[in-house]
Amino acid sequence: MNYTFSDNISSVKPSAIREILKMVAANPSIISLSTGSPSNEAIPVEEIHEICEKIFRERPIEALQYSMTEGYPALRETTKKRLHEVFGIDPENNDVIITTGGQQGLYLTPEVLVNRGDTVICESPSFVSGIIAMKTCGANVVGVEMDDEGIRLDKLEEAIRTEKNVKLLYLIPTFQNPRGSTMSLQRRKDVYELCVKNNIIILEDNPYGELRFRGEDIPTIKSMDTEGIVVYNGSYSKVLSAGMRIGFVCAPKPIIQKEIIAKQGGDCHSNIFFQIVVDEFFRHYDVDAHIRKIRGIYRDKCDFMLDCLDKYLDKRVTWTHPDGGLFLWCSLPEGYDSLDFARKAAEKGVAFVPGCSFMVKDDEPCPAFRLNYSTPSKENIERGIKILAEAVDEYLK
Amino acid sequence: MNYTFSDNISSVKPSAIREILKMVAANPSIISLSTGSPSNEAIPVEEIHEICEKIFRERPIEALQYSMTEGYPALRETTKKRLHEVFGIDPENNDVIITTGGQQGLYLTPEVLVNRGDTVICESPSFVSGIIAMKTCGANVVGVEMDDEGIRLDKLEEAIRTEKNVKLLYLIPTFQNPRGSTMSLQRRKDVYELCVKNNIIILEDNPYGELRFRGEDIPTIKSMDTEGIVVYNGSYSKVLSAGMRIGFVCAPKPIIQKEIIAKQGGDCHSNIFFQIVVDEFFRHYDVDAHIRKIRGIYRDKCDFMLDCLDKYLDKRVTWTHPDGGLFLWCSLPEGYDSLDFARKAAEKGVAFVPGCSFMVKDDEPCPAFRLNYSTPSKENIERGIKILAEAVDEYLK
Repeated sequence: MNYTFSDNISSVKPSAIREILKMVAANPSIISLSTGSPSNEAIPVEEIHEICEKIFRERPIEALQYSMTEGYPALRETTKKRLHEVFGIDPENNDVIITTGGQQGLYLTPEVLVNRGDTVICESPSFVSGIIAMKTCGANVVGVEMDDEGIRLDKLEEAIRTEKNVKLLYLIPTFQNPRGSTMSLQRRKDVYELCVKNNIIILEDNPYGELRFRGEDIPTIKSMDTEGIVVYNGSYSKVLSAGMRIGFVCAPKPIIQKEIIAKQGGDCHSNIFFQIVVDEFFRHYDVDAHIRKIRGIYRDKCDFMLDCLDKYLDKRVTWTHPDGGLFLWCSLPEGYDSLDFARKAAEKGVAFVPGCSFMVKDDEPCPAFRLNYSTPSKENIERGIKILAEAVDEYLK
Repeated sequence: MNYTFSDNISSVKPSAIREILKMVAANPSIISLSTGSPSNEAIPVEEIHEICEKIFRERPIEALQYSMTEGYPALRETTKKRLHEVFGIDPENNDVIITTGGQQGLYLTPEVLVNRGDTVICESPSFVSGIIAMKTCGANVVGVEMDDEGIRLDKLEEAIRTEKNVKLLYLIPTFQNPRGSTMSLQRRKDVYELCVKNNIIILEDNPYGELRFRGEDIPTIKSMDTEGIVVYNGSYSKVLSAGMRIGFVCAPKPIIQKEIIAKQGGDCHSNIFFQIVVDEFFRHYDVDAHIRKIRGIYRDKCDFMLDCLDKYLDKRVTWTHPDGGLFLWCSLPEGYDSLDFARKAAEKGVAFVPGCSFMVKDDEPCPAFRLNYSTPSKENIERGIKILAEAVDEYLK
């Protein structure tokens, strides 16, 4: 049979990232600076094991039977409480749905808000799977350039004026993926005002919000949300475990009501066993001490990678200096293509994700690329950056 | 702000089932024959606990870190092998994606195949959350009447002729939800031929396939699929645990390739810890003995409910006699409305799901209702049916 696929799914093309990942998979000696994973050392395995034991002792059936679509009630409360205390989010006018990882929220929100052909604006570059989620919901996804303070306001205004039915603005304001940079307070305020004026919902994705290891916290856009236009997307992947797939959306109640219906059709509910694990961890363990520990791990690795870059890399290459999160963003001089460079570097033994993977237009050329410091050991960070430096020397000469 | 939601999500209206479930939640003394859950006794808690211990001993990081969108490779192989051995499904020309419960497959398949306005035909009545999944993908969902052998062929032909762009036929051929009835072999062959002729993909949903407690197995439609037109949807919810949310889709490779992209945007991957649990269970435990045990539990409870119905219920009410699965389907005489009856019965102390909940058109009146025998204890089955009989006597007099 000749299959005809939906227009929505046909709009997503396989990304250049796959090619690089295949090279890594085929050759385990390649040092990978390409993942988006938290550090293995950051996963509190012993505590999770203890909680699992407790669940098997006290309530295995509850943890293994069907549960509610909107999520385990205790975890919804725990999540609301933490969002209020740490991120200044109003618990009265917002509700929470538990999702199958932060990723599911990135799908549910456009699913309930966007018709095929409506526009979603995002930062350019932005998170690959976020862009895929918007496209598979049928959105016309438009990328808007960033500067050092975040998404550019002039370009954003222009896109709102010229694109069709702009419904949603998808942002990762804090420790952005892939750039690792953070939107300034003033830019957050300006973007919020602009969206209020234009009836545009902001989807504020904050998976790395707990991972600040330097500098002062900047208020979330959601904490400014007196008008009910911000949908806040969060995740327990970077704080506890990514493999369990537990995230959440916090938004005004009418939006959460629609997301519950969408989730009923989408996967019924998220793994209830691990919803209980997360809730138990936040209720009975020293969460702040745990988060201090993982911040320390990331600061240490980030600083080490920055030192290596300073020490080994040609000064024509520039890079961001993150205050948190998992990534930094390196730029070759204008005119070079990081996809071509990534292929050559992988042949030499180091892998990273070329910038074109994070572009809205399929494989739009980009001189920059993303480096991850959370996954590799320090030894591999140093070896990887040394190989990268050699590859740069050959490539730029 | 006044929110404007997508046309897709706006097409799903809250179901009558919610009203009944609210009455149950508000009054714990009501006997519930309304769930779709497996028996608590059917969950192999001890074995799952043992496997969890093994995972924490041997490979906790692998089970708690990010994993692959298409699923844990060993479980994909285990699933293919069992589908080949038990359900006669060709492992060469098909591939498997692991999903977040069977429910996710019911969403991914229309998502990759159906454009807004295309038609999906399903049995009438059919599974509520299946219908929701199709509607939230933008499908024009059309229900086709059933007779004792399954979906009616004449009515199906008519719908194919008259409805716009029929892309997908959604069927639960074995122990159908809500009717508990099974499609005959001849009907399966006829439906398959009709779909081949009309280029229509069949979505064969088989969550209860392992739960036959009487009679001979009837081949799956997928086992006849020489033309690559059948997408087979399965679940480990009824065999191991529903709360873990592990299911799968088995389909021709081009379809699975698209579903992997859709799942990347949808939830990245399913809980990897429990994917390993399922795989370990199927590799190292006596699965056949376990399945014999749960079939025994369901036969016993089903027979007991049938005996109670025979003993207590007015003979103007009729019901199906299932050979497997979780449900039976009771019909009031024509002209009565089971929603109205369900409200009255809940006031008297027994809850079940009125037939209108399973109709494609929102709350279309229906004289029949669904009874579940897997969840309640035998004691509650008898008490529940006694109350039901009293309610019938009052209602029909």
